[in-house]
Amino acid sequence: MAHLRLTLVTNSGARIGPGKAALLASVHSTGSISAAARSMGMDYKRAWLLIDSLNRAFHIAAVEGSAGGTGGGGAILTPFGQQLLERYCRLQAAAAELATADLDFIQQHATSDTGPKI
Amino acid sequence: MAHLRLTLVTNSGARIGPGKAALLASVHSTGSISAAARSMGMDYKRAWLLIDSLNRAFHIAAVEGSAGGTGGGGAILTPFGQQLLERYCRLQAAAAELATADLDFIQQHATSDTGPKI
Repeated sequence: MAHLRLTLVTNSGARIGPGKAALLASVHSTGSISAAARSMGMDYKRAWLLIDSLNRAFHIAAVEGSAGGTGGGGAILTPFGQQLLERYCRLQAAAAELATADLDFIQQHATSDTGPKI
Repeated sequence: MAHLRLTLVTNSGARIGPGKAALLASVHSTGSISAAARSMGMDYKRAWLLIDSLNRAFHIAAVEGSAGGTGGGGAILTPFGQQLLERYCRLQAAAAELATADLDFIQQHATSDTGPKI
């Protein structure tokens, strides 16, 4: 089935799309950036960079270190990060519903060509 | 103001996003791929590749050579290409309206950081 990718872009060009949203969701469920990266088959450095870019894009951090006891080092979504993720997911679902007929239309006419994606 | 980027992705991974939609619109208004590329500050080769990838993504061409008389060589959107563009534009507008409150929310919290966009 065809699907929709949705990206929110701020004035300064910072982006929140499916990749960062999935990473936020994964940090929320796993409680750490490294576990989130692992669960997404992403290297830690890339996950860290994505989260750093999100944190820099806003006046409020979206992810912060959790109060670690011994062997801490986890990460959690801040209330702002949770709201960002919730808004993105709600909007993505609503837009996908809005797009149902259009997605059907393009899939009906789509070939199975898997040439270069540009 | 923050804005929304919307990309439709077929089963096989072919994409129609803001760039291809703008190119289709430009071919439609200029009547040629080279004029469309020029008006977008894009080199001809890239414009051609984008249109070729669109044409390969579907069983029906979206853009074809216009019946050129002497010195022809123009390009036009097929009815399918026009429908594709109309659907994309309508969906983009409807999704942007749906996203108004979310776009306001992210812009309110956005910094003017123009660091690397990832």
